[in-house]
Amino acid sequence: MTRFDLNILGCGSATCTTRHLPSCQVLNVRDNLLMIDCGEGAQRSMRQMRLKFSRLNHIFISHLHGDHVFGLPGLLSTLALAGRTGSVIVHIFSDGAEWLRRTMDYYCRERPFDLQFNVIGITRQVIYEDNGIVVTAFPLKHRVPCVGFRIDEKPKLRHILPEAVARYGVPRWAIDGLRHGRDWATADGVTVPNHLLTAPPDPSRSYAYCSDTMPGARVVQAIEGVDWLYHEATYGDECQQQAHNRYHSTARQAAIAARQAGARNLLIGHFSSRYNDETSLLDQAREEFPATILAQEQLVIDLNQNIAL
Amino acid sequence: MTRFDLNILGCGSATCTTRHLPSCQVLNVRDNLLMIDCGEGAQRSMRQMRLKFSRLNHIFISHLHGDHVFGLPGLLSTLALAGRTGSVIVHIFSDGAEWLRRTMDYYCRERPFDLQFNVIGITRQVIYEDNGIVVTAFPLKHRVPCVGFRIDEKPKLRHILPEAVARYGVPRWAIDGLRHGRDWATADGVTVPNHLLTAPPDPSRSYAYCSDTMPGARVVQAIEGVDWLYHEATYGDECQQQAHNRYHSTARQAAIAARQAGARNLLIGHFSSRYNDETSLLDQAREEFPATILAQEQLVIDLNQNIAL
Repeated sequence: MTRFDLNILGCGSATCTTRHLPSCQVLNVRDNLLMIDCGEGAQRSMRQMRLKFSRLNHIFISHLHGDHVFGLPGLLSTLALAGRTGSVIVHIFSDGAEWLRRTMDYYCRERPFDLQFNVIGITRQVIYEDNGIVVTAFPLKHRVPCVGFRIDEKPKLRHILPEAVARYGVPRWAIDGLRHGRDWATADGVTVPNHLLTAPPDPSRSYAYCSDTMPGARVVQAIEGVDWLYHEATYGDECQQQAHNRYHSTARQAAIAARQAGARNLLIGHFSSRYNDETSLLDQAREEFPATILAQEQLVIDLNQNIAL
Repeated sequence: MTRFDLNILGCGSATCTTRHLPSCQVLNVRDNLLMIDCGEGAQRSMRQMRLKFSRLNHIFISHLHGDHVFGLPGLLSTLALAGRTGSVIVHIFSDGAEWLRRTMDYYCRERPFDLQFNVIGITRQVIYEDNGIVVTAFPLKHRVPCVGFRIDEKPKLRHILPEAVARYGVPRWAIDGLRHGRDWATADGVTVPNHLLTAPPDPSRSYAYCSDTMPGARVVQAIEGVDWLYHEATYGDECQQQAHNRYHSTARQAAIAARQAGARNLLIGHFSSRYNDETSLLDQAREEFPATILAQEQLVIDLNQNIAL
């Protein structure tokens, strides 16, 4: 299996507590790190979780509230001090890009790496793509412009069957073609179909991040069929009106969204500071969608696995 | 004794580590909190150390390096969320005021408190004064404009001697005058000298904060005779050249400054990330100035006391 891990660096909401840090996650895709939101303390959490600064190339920011961005100046300054080279790309709304560029140009003008901005909008669109993944931003329903992110692994390579390859005498140069699904034609015109030489690829997995948002049909549509869903669950049932007024979700609403979207696993977070223990949120979510777990700082989830029920 | 406590929230240097947080201190003067520098994580440390947001009225920023200011946006946003009213005054250089105002006006425009700026320069001058203390800023020697802060308690009130006051029949309205040192004149023209009615006040204490700086005669002059000195000690003897090149001090240089200034107690901090243990820095400092201790996160020092030797 190729690595597809989710690291939770912070899963609290805006009000600072001693139990949670503000929003920040790091997705490890084949040892390339993608950060999603960057609340205050992100750089320290990366150190604590032994996530390498040298592997962090992309930072995706959902919206411009302080608890999702105030870790950026410190993190990027530390990358500079650590002698980080290459480029770091921040995917962010235009106002955020302007603020961050201005801040970094003042506090950290000498940077050994190239700080780049991918200015994103609030329409549903692919904002990043490489050999392994596609990242799609999609609109959430919050009181300021806000997007979620969906990361889909691309189809993976087929597995070579070494014995079959030896038996049919496939030369080394043709191996890569087999991995991509091509048949093998011998010099004398015999075609060996690919499925005799390879085994099917590992399944491609998907992950979606929805914070901050109230429930909505368009959100459900955008996250359809994901293997893992992180959905904010700021409140419990008893605060449903408050959740609505503040454009947030309850744990139950997060779970209903997971069910409606046909997600396989649900991770809830962005907990209000009013909770000293999120068990009630977990219980309420599981009534609607059993495959739910609570986010927690320093939690690492292998997204190739599913929650055991 | 009136309260005069120093809380260490962060005593690391610019490079983030898991052992230290960036620079931040809170001085508790009679339950009024004054923050000195505000590195990332300050708001969380305040929560952890149970320092009340409602008591924080002044924030003093020594210079505009990220490890001394990046906690400000998060802290001030949290004050707003916590419904903090009244005013919060940030004493800071003009560029810093501009950056912070812009940042807060974008991320936290609705503030129930009044965010004020006292734009300071790099000359030696009184920048704040109230009934209890005087705060003086003075130039340090760093590679960017940088000031230290000296906080001097004003002379305190004399202690009433209840038995003497009763014996001479001093009325209640005259008690405050006695505390301020006035004599008591009876209706028939007899003057009772103050020293018969009161005991001397508690001593007034002083504290100076010097970070970041290399050693210098002007710095020593500004901190002359302080009861407690916090002085940066980024490096040990083995890195003296590096300290010089980067406009920092070694632990030994910090201790020599304390001795030259006639300070009574020394607290060293702003430790380089290269040290996993600062014992060697402490040993080197104590060779020059025995009354030295190491700063450490969550340390609280009663500045009315002295280090026992």
